[in-house]
Amino acid sequence: MARIGGEEYEARQAAMRRLAAQAGFRGVVAWSRGGAAQDHYAGVYYLTGFYQHQPFVPDLPGRWRAQGHAAVVLPVDGPALLLTGDGTVQEPGPAARVRAAPDLVDALAEQLRAAIPPGRVGLIGCEAMSAPWWCRLRSVLPGHELVGADDLAWTARRVKSPAELDLMRAAGVLGVRAMTAARGAATPGVTEAEVAAAAIAEIVRAGGAYYGMGISSGTESHTFAASDPAPYSGRPLSAGDLLRIDLYGSVHGYLFDLARTWVVGAEPTIEQRRLLDAVRDAVHAGIEVLRPGLQVGQVARRCQEVFERSAFVTHHGMPESELGGAWGHGLGLSFEPPWVAADGRDAGEVIEAGMCLALERRIAMPAVGGASYEDDVIVTDSGPEVVTAEPVE
Amino acid sequence: MARIGGEEYEARQAAMRRLAAQAGFRGVVAWSRGGAAQDHYAGVYYLTGFYQHQPFVPDLPGRWRAQGHAAVVLPVDGPALLLTGDGTVQEPGPAARVRAAPDLVDALAEQLRAAIPPGRVGLIGCEAMSAPWWCRLRSVLPGHELVGADDLAWTARRVKSPAELDLMRAAGVLGVRAMTAARGAATPGVTEAEVAAAAIAEIVRAGGAYYGMGISSGTESHTFAASDPAPYSGRPLSAGDLLRIDLYGSVHGYLFDLARTWVVGAEPTIEQRRLLDAVRDAVHAGIEVLRPGLQVGQVARRCQEVFERSAFVTHHGMPESELGGAWGHGLGLSFEPPWVAADGRDAGEVIEAGMCLALERRIAMPAVGGASYEDDVIVTDSGPEVVTAEPVE
Repeated sequence: MARIGGEEYEARQAAMRRLAAQAGFRGVVAWSRGGAAQDHYAGVYYLTGFYQHQPFVPDLPGRWRAQGHAAVVLPVDGPALLLTGDGTVQEPGPAARVRAAPDLVDALAEQLRAAIPPGRVGLIGCEAMSAPWWCRLRSVLPGHELVGADDLAWTARRVKSPAELDLMRAAGVLGVRAMTAARGAATPGVTEAEVAAAAIAEIVRAGGAYYGMGISSGTESHTFAASDPAPYSGRPLSAGDLLRIDLYGSVHGYLFDLARTWVVGAEPTIEQRRLLDAVRDAVHAGIEVLRPGLQVGQVARRCQEVFERSAFVTHHGMPESELGGAWGHGLGLSFEPPWVAADGRDAGEVIEAGMCLALERRIAMPAVGGASYEDDVIVTDSGPEVVTAEPVE
Repeated sequence: MARIGGEEYEARQAAMRRLAAQAGFRGVVAWSRGGAAQDHYAGVYYLTGFYQHQPFVPDLPGRWRAQGHAAVVLPVDGPALLLTGDGTVQEPGPAARVRAAPDLVDALAEQLRAAIPPGRVGLIGCEAMSAPWWCRLRSVLPGHELVGADDLAWTARRVKSPAELDLMRAAGVLGVRAMTAARGAATPGVTEAEVAAAAIAEIVRAGGAYYGMGISSGTESHTFAASDPAPYSGRPLSAGDLLRIDLYGSVHGYLFDLARTWVVGAEPTIEQRRLLDAVRDAVHAGIEVLRPGLQVGQVARRCQEVFERSAFVTHHGMPESELGGAWGHGLGLSFEPPWVAADGRDAGEVIEAGMCLALERRIAMPAVGGASYEDDVIVTDSGPEVVTAEPVE
């Protein structure tokens, strides 16, 4: 079937202008979130092991509010309480008492009044707290000042426990299995979507969760596909195509996030080889130096040095910087700080054993294509442990 | 590997209490969103055709804010402008000029100042606008009053265009294909996760997007699986098991949302048969009466009547109500109003040709299991057009 045509968007915009004017507005802002399923579960899941499966549905006044969300109220001197839409939990139960909360916002206000005296209360998961609910909480809870406190969560989750490290390892192994399945499926004539299906099915069969991917092939070099919730295209692969996949998902909530690039059904050309080598070698160089006591910025500088000396940069110059110049990020129950950049907020942060980092780089070259490489690494006292290790190419 | 143990959650909560106390808080609230990938893209996508693939990453002050989001500014008397993280767009381009906005919040404030005189401005997509960004907008834009206006979007999107109806049909067909693949895979010994993989791979191969599912088997009757971002379990199916799947995803952003239940490798027992018949017959009865001019509440009452007369209810009494008593909801670029309930806000809404509804019911019976049935229907002047039609059982 056809996509929506350009005139239809014009008509939609015109109709929306009329609706806005009728409502007494000078205009409207449409604000949207994309990027699929990395859905802000970490705050509650970290503290209680509860994941909210109910998908978001728009608020229905008097019946429900903030469905698809969950909240934990944790006083500094009292037990945790978990608020969920219908209060249903299954074994293994969450590490908190549970209360059903069809109106999660008012239930949260009630629980704050009951369990925490007026004063400052930290809010973890600000990004999932929408403006209308925040405004409601402020109006019904004048004595409690909710203050953004995601930094507390980053601090608590920065160094992983042995059980968490095992889950990061399992996630890495599953990510590599999925990438291997993609590689096996990627033969000439097969579409990007079919390759994606092979990777995703591998994740799902094993009980993992698929969150998203960036995929490009041939001379295409975008990070993500064009405008469509499905990130893969129907483009059939040809022998000699570069195929670039950045894949993320989780095992019991703990993320893998890895990227590989290879040439389909042929040996790389010299230009393809330069792209592949540049991203892989720079990331590997950063991994090799990873150890406790090093500063985050030093890792990024090491990646950058090796990248600058690559045959790719020698022949084609420095490509545009990406991720604000970062070479990766923390990884755990979400994409997390620290940002592995040579300067900026996290550059001076000292690396500790038990931290998990995803180091990555993507570059694009007109008429040749795009290449990405990314590995997930646990920092140990004896050096880096790559949890996404696999034979390269 | 092992899951995180109960003591570890205790330790996490204790550590968080200490962090909170050190920060001068009386406690913390962790606020999370789950429910996977139905991710609030509709507002911007509807007006411009732009989908934001970049996943959310936490704000990094001075480098980026609100990554993973996109905004359209639409003055009542001027052209639309689309703000995205890096300004990259691919063919087919969005129906708006595009501006790169690494700090999407400040860029939105700037654009509002430039394009819309001070006054009331409607905000579509409130739920994706988080509290800190809202507070920032209010402080830097004192003259503009942003007012929640999701009702405008529901009004605009309620009756679908011919092109949208074609996409709803394509989505329904793909949903049925995926359910058929699940049915083909569901033989004794196969796990829930393997059945899920078959359905999801079918969606992905065809270029659709998978959003989520509820699955239960045997005598389990939960709506969603236990706490884990993966909604399917590793439970192997046995002959005679009820298998219940509620599956949602999209084609070019337009949703399918359908549920089926069947018995694996055996004829239904009389009790299983009663469960299956009750949900299917009640939903079908609602579909049969769907036509322009009817009120939404009348549809719910028709479903309810037939359900109350079912052999299941006759023998086992009325089960607990679900979805706040609703028998379904609008469907399009998201789960949408109207809520198909016998009373409440939307009961008096008059149905029009071009509306799309998902009618559904789930029931659970201890020691027998759970059953769901759901179809997606387009209302036409000549009656209901079921876009998820398939041979039943």
